[in-house]
Amino acid sequence: VSLELELISWLEKNLHTSDRLKIALGDDAAVIAASSADSVVTTDMLTDGVDFLLEDVDPQLVGRKALGVNLSDLAAMAAEPLAAFVSLVLPRGGTSKLTALELATELYRGMIPLAEKYGIIIAGGDTNTWNGPLAISVTAIGETTVRGPLTRSGAKIGDYLLVTGNFGGSILGKHFQFEPRIAESLLLNEHYTLHAGMDISDGLAIDASRLAKTNECGIVLDLSLIPIADAACRLSDRDGRPALEHALGDGEDFELLLAVPTNAAQEILSAQPLAIPVTHIGEVIAEPGLWQITPSGKWYPLEPSGYEHQADE
Amino acid sequence: VSLELELISWLEKNLHTSDRLKIALGDDAAVIAASSADSVVTTDMLTDGVDFLLEDVDPQLVGRKALGVNLSDLAAMAAEPLAAFVSLVLPRGGTSKLTALELATELYRGMIPLAEKYGIIIAGGDTNTWNGPLAISVTAIGETTVRGPLTRSGAKIGDYLLVTGNFGGSILGKHFQFEPRIAESLLLNEHYTLHAGMDISDGLAIDASRLAKTNECGIVLDLSLIPIADAACRLSDRDGRPALEHALGDGEDFELLLAVPTNAAQEILSAQPLAIPVTHIGEVIAEPGLWQITPSGKWYPLEPSGYEHQADE
Repeated sequence: VSLELELISWLEKNLHTSDRLKIALGDDAAVIAASSADSVVTTDMLTDGVDFLLEDVDPQLVGRKALGVNLSDLAAMAAEPLAAFVSLVLPRGGTSKLTALELATELYRGMIPLAEKYGIIIAGGDTNTWNGPLAISVTAIGETTVRGPLTRSGAKIGDYLLVTGNFGGSILGKHFQFEPRIAESLLLNEHYTLHAGMDISDGLAIDASRLAKTNECGIVLDLSLIPIADAACRLSDRDGRPALEHALGDGEDFELLLAVPTNAAQEILSAQPLAIPVTHIGEVIAEPGLWQITPSGKWYPLEPSGYEHQADE
Repeated sequence: VSLELELISWLEKNLHTSDRLKIALGDDAAVIAASSADSVVTTDMLTDGVDFLLEDVDPQLVGRKALGVNLSDLAAMAAEPLAAFVSLVLPRGGTSKLTALELATELYRGMIPLAEKYGIIIAGGDTNTWNGPLAISVTAIGETTVRGPLTRSGAKIGDYLLVTGNFGGSILGKHFQFEPRIAESLLLNEHYTLHAGMDISDGLAIDASRLAKTNECGIVLDLSLIPIADAACRLSDRDGRPALEHALGDGEDFELLLAVPTNAAQEILSAQPLAIPVTHIGEVIAEPGLWQITPSGKWYPLEPSGYEHQADE
């Protein structure tokens, strides 16, 4: 029996389904019942040696992350998760511990609980082997709510910048174990007026500078307000770099960055309607670029630290 | 400037768009306007060393094929193409002739004309580099027509088996240059009653045996009726294997295999409504398995030759 057929038979027993899925595994394509909502589609590929080191990590965490980064993109758009499609290319010989088929099922074992938790059905995929390292490509489809999508554009001068959760040191665990902020994004988008939003994947500073650029405006951050993760402090103890630097530049926090009109922002800040904190960290300003404000009220340029996707990365 | 940003800037100039695409490149996800049709979603990954040899082939053909195989899956479902999402992982150093960025744009240069021809918009993607070979994952989204999807199940005993085009020898060129049978599938599904259908990717015999299995019935082929491609004859001249064997087992023909009630099948066969021939090659029977019928009317089992996705392939 071929690997792909064995995997499909395993998936038929282990994947959950939904009324919306009219045709799933076993045909040339999946069929998803129509709805009145717009579709929100995102795709992300993770690769061995760049996004993870397969020999050093539980493959379930790799599978979880591959789906999680796509869910985080749906959260960034305030979309309800609907269906995910998973393309794998597996090292022919598996890993030092697992055959190629075992590796595939472990990856899915990492994805399935996250899919159930966030209400997304794994509705199809493609599985290949080769003489190369592991790569996983996930495409996630979501749907807008009646409130419409949250986009990167739409920020206005004077908007408060709000973030969920805290930042820095994700390499100590959160980069695999993060929760995509689906529930948080849907709740905030339903009950409050949000002007713009994105998820923080490459780093708070660089992603904030991108939000500014998309909106042809600037952003000023009050560095004393940045919520610093315990992990950033622990990492700082180890490497001597300030925890704030980790919070600004580490990336893979997968928190939300939102530009919110001041009234709505103040309501959110006092209501604190989420299970995690929402924090005011700065404002949208007319002057282009990324800035920091000192306790005395002076502005200085702020380096947009974080992960730049280089030609050699 | 990073490779991904340079590529996005190239794509913004070179991709066509559609009214249905409300948000495209530059946000966390694409947004596609709702319609009353069901969504049909398929994903396929092609990899260097398995599906092509990057150093021996024009990368535009690789890009064309990566999109084409997904369009062929939409054709198999009689779905109208809507949007495609492209995930690339590129060898960091490019090829012996091209940088990684040039390789990426060549891949897209192969996809874009095919996308335009078949009315699918390339609406998003993800681009990565690594110390590994090239892999391309494409996810294509289509929509059912009012006639509903064509599926693999639904074949009935007595149905005629029809195929479009001809078979064998695709390795001489058609495996890259094939036309996905979108127009043919939509036309036949609109004007005639089709019971079941699929595209022939792994080989006529093995794919016919899969159609039989899905429908818990059998298929008998009249081997004297199989339309043999010129390429199968040319390959036969080279390697001495019968052209018919190539037609049955080579695969990558990307033609349609249809189970059609006899009345509708006879109408199609006499009307020949397509720009390519439609041929009657056999019938759906009660006896499970794949069979051949001889000129004298006797049945023999037929080996389901073709490409099996093995654990080591």
